[in-house]
Amino acid sequence: MKHIRLTIQYDGTGYAGWQVQPDMLTIQGLLEGALEQVTGENTQVVSAGRTDAGVHAIEQVASFRSSSRLTPGVFQRALNSLLPPDIRVMDARYCSDGFNPRCSARSKRYFYLIDNSAVQSPFLSRYSYHFHGALDLGAMRVASGPLIGRYDFRSFQGSGCGARTTTREIYRIEITQLNEFEVFTVRFHGRLVRIAIEANAFLRHMVRNIAGTLLEVGRGVMDAQAMERIVLGRDRRLAGPTAPACGLFLEWVAYPQGDKVDD
Amino acid sequence: MKHIRLTIQYDGTGYAGWQVQPDMLTIQGLLEGALEQVTGENTQVVSAGRTDAGVHAIEQVASFRSSSRLTPGVFQRALNSLLPPDIRVMDARYCSDGFNPRCSARSKRYFYLIDNSAVQSPFLSRYSYHFHGALDLGAMRVASGPLIGRYDFRSFQGSGCGARTTTREIYRIEITQLNEFEVFTVRFHGRLVRIAIEANAFLRHMVRNIAGTLLEVGRGVMDAQAMERIVLGRDRRLAGPTAPACGLFLEWVAYPQGDKVDD
Repeated sequence: MKHIRLTIQYDGTGYAGWQVQPDMLTIQGLLEGALEQVTGENTQVVSAGRTDAGVHAIEQVASFRSSSRLTPGVFQRALNSLLPPDIRVMDARYCSDGFNPRCSARSKRYFYLIDNSAVQSPFLSRYSYHFHGALDLGAMRVASGPLIGRYDFRSFQGSGCGARTTTREIYRIEITQLNEFEVFTVRFHGRLVRIAIEANAFLRHMVRNIAGTLLEVGRGVMDAQAMERIVLGRDRRLAGPTAPACGLFLEWVAYPQGDKVDD
Repeated sequence: MKHIRLTIQYDGTGYAGWQVQPDMLTIQGLLEGALEQVTGENTQVVSAGRTDAGVHAIEQVASFRSSSRLTPGVFQRALNSLLPPDIRVMDARYCSDGFNPRCSARSKRYFYLIDNSAVQSPFLSRYSYHFHGALDLGAMRVASGPLIGRYDFRSFQGSGCGARTTTREIYRIEITQLNEFEVFTVRFHGRLVRIAIEANAFLRHMVRNIAGTLLEVGRGVMDAQAMERIVLGRDRRLAGPTAPACGLFLEWVAYPQGDKVDD
């Protein structure tokens, strides 16, 4: 059995998320269906992050095993010819047998985009959450401080999360504002706020719940000091609402050198 | 009657183009419907360019007359609250009575995006034409030379174009290649080719027919010298195919100083 690692990009707008669900259009379901068409084998595709309905991915990592002799390059072209244009295999290569996209990951980064412009560009409406109103980025940055480190993040855990432990380690949170940005070669003027969070792993809805809580702080509904109490309280009811899925992107997944793919 | 000028941005993917057509979803139709809801008046909206089905606009210019006392700012907010998120009024202001978005225009610029990367990003699939294969940009630039100036562009006129004269003046054509580009704060590596054309006015399908012909030159199917013969031949059959609508954007419309809007 060959073990093949894929880098997958998708616009999640039209999908019920990564994970296979009966009668639902999912990324995993379409990939497994396409693989079955290519190899005739019933194949399971495992990913680094099971993104929710509507969530996008720039570099999702996934892998599958196959007894087919097809090379990774042939797999990539065959899958792309069968998949809809909003899901693309950007890279395919052999990986070690022990590689597991989720468990081998050293860290992942998600980012959440808030369009804070007065009027949201139609080219951003699928890819950001439009919130027009003053946002205090300084307060949001102060509030993000107590989240850095190894904590029980139960306060930001969505219901239905099957994680055995709710302890995760957040390495870095960056909150940036862009007054100019580019969309397909065109310069746009507006106000985009980007919350990027890097952690060893994430609980279900964790980024969206953190983004939703930081938005409450930015709007002045919660004070910046509230975050420490929310983390220590370990109670979902203390945190803010879940920010909408359309603003969330899985940006990348990093692996230790030892789990580097075989080029 | 007040005369109000709008700057409108839209993702044309889901629409049958600008112009009202029975039983079709069009930008003009949605705008006029929204205006009727706001004012109770049956209002006609005139635009600078009647973009085709699937064509996008960064800064389409349009105007309408109303006896309502609502200010442009109130019109803008009311329209945006009624329109779907893929159509947005980015600006609204009073304009002179004689202003006509199409006839007053001094020049317009469209650009056409070709994604020449091996694999097309899902975030570009709605907004570019994917052509993977060698493109000789030098030959395309040479071929674009004979198009600059005032000519009868009948060879690039789509059928059903009701223009009285087929003479137009192209001021500038820029063909650029980007190996790095940004989409909502994320750097992408790939190969985007952008054909930007500025002219006093355009015939129906003119940009897409020029882009399609330049693609034939870039691929080596037509030689760069063919363009002069195509223009002088004044026969649509001489030019290349119409490039797909999804790659086309109306970028901006320029007006002479005298027709500047009243701020």
